[in-house]
Amino acid sequence: MDGLADIIELDGDPTPPQERKLQIFSEACRLFATRGFDGASMRDIAQECGISKATLYHYFPDKDAILRPLLLGVTKALHRHVAGRIREDDPALEKLRTYMMESAAFFQRHRWAMIASSSVFWNDPQVRRRRERLEWRDRYEALLRAILREAAERGEMRALDVPLAGRLVLSALNWLPRWFDPAGPLTAPEIAERFHGMIVEGFRRRPATDNAQ
Amino acid sequence: MDGLADIIELDGDPTPPQERKLQIFSEACRLFATRGFDGASMRDIAQECGISKATLYHYFPDKDAILRPLLLGVTKALHRHVAGRIREDDPALEKLRTYMMESAAFFQRHRWAMIASSSVFWNDPQVRRRRERLEWRDRYEALLRAILREAAERGEMRALDVPLAGRLVLSALNWLPRWFDPAGPLTAPEIAERFHGMIVEGFRRRPATDNAQ
Repeated sequence: MDGLADIIELDGDPTPPQERKLQIFSEACRLFATRGFDGASMRDIAQECGISKATLYHYFPDKDAILRPLLLGVTKALHRHVAGRIREDDPALEKLRTYMMESAAFFQRHRWAMIASSSVFWNDPQVRRRRERLEWRDRYEALLRAILREAAERGEMRALDVPLAGRLVLSALNWLPRWFDPAGPLTAPEIAERFHGMIVEGFRRRPATDNAQ
Repeated sequence: MDGLADIIELDGDPTPPQERKLQIFSEACRLFATRGFDGASMRDIAQECGISKATLYHYFPDKDAILRPLLLGVTKALHRHVAGRIREDDPALEKLRTYMMESAAFFQRHRWAMIASSSVFWNDPQVRRRRERLEWRDRYEALLRAILREAAERGEMRALDVPLAGRLVLSALNWLPRWFDPAGPLTAPEIAERFHGMIVEGFRRRPATDNAQ
């Protein structure tokens, strides 16, 4: 069930959701990602799960009740996954590499959920306003800016506009779940690692770095 | 009417569409961008234009008939806008700057159309397959890869993976219409120019470049 059990939290229920619910989350997520939230009906979701609409309504009153724990779940789990893997003693530009690679590893594992999440995020102004989810997203982005500020303060990075540098890194990461091909030659973390190398060392050829990747 | 007259081409009609049609394109485009294609109905579009549904249907049989010229129009116009502004004699990394800044200038001018276009592109598999539009998008992306290959051949750029380097540049650009704030301190081309500087020179501080932006 592509790891959704680890990231979905149901209100007031500390245990992971049962199999049937996970199956519903998983199919709904893929449908939201490929057809958009409005393009996938309760009927479609039931059909993909091989259950009746009545059974589906027994678990969830509407699509929103499926979407909400999914969106909050991935956003929160992304922050925890990445923050928990940054090593405090690393140089800041090495922390940046961990941030990028671990984000990509998470995107690879939860690709459908990430695509569903970002299309809904941008298309539905109501969802966009949901505070708890935004707070987790903000923490994830603030972690990146903290790493970049540390890199500047320690003299590892040039004196760049930190929020804008953060936007560049996030743009590279945010677009990844959309175009990443699981059957392609590189894994998502490998792509993120190369992006890190390009961003940190720059495109320009210099006598000192020559053709080093 | 935010410049849509320059980019919309109607089948078999070489003249720009008349005022009323442009108004419909413009309002529909903003609605598709903010609510998604499925979230905006013909009724909503008529209402935003201050016309009756009957009048709207007089011009367009359905939403798809509004969306199609819009999507093809922005994709084709983006390629023409950027390709027409690259100066053949410039160094390749300078061409890269032009590519990025002119893309951003186009996004700024046609922000709603770009947002509508990218959300529909990713959410609607049918639209995604539409060949003519994809051909223009491919040309736009191929132009970037040609610039990067030239930069590598002339020794201006390190020996990077050109398609992946192109992805990094496109990610930075593609995300811009989403988060760019027209009321913010920087114009979209100014942001693109800074992204260019960060990507070309790299984040890492070097004795030679020191704190130069």
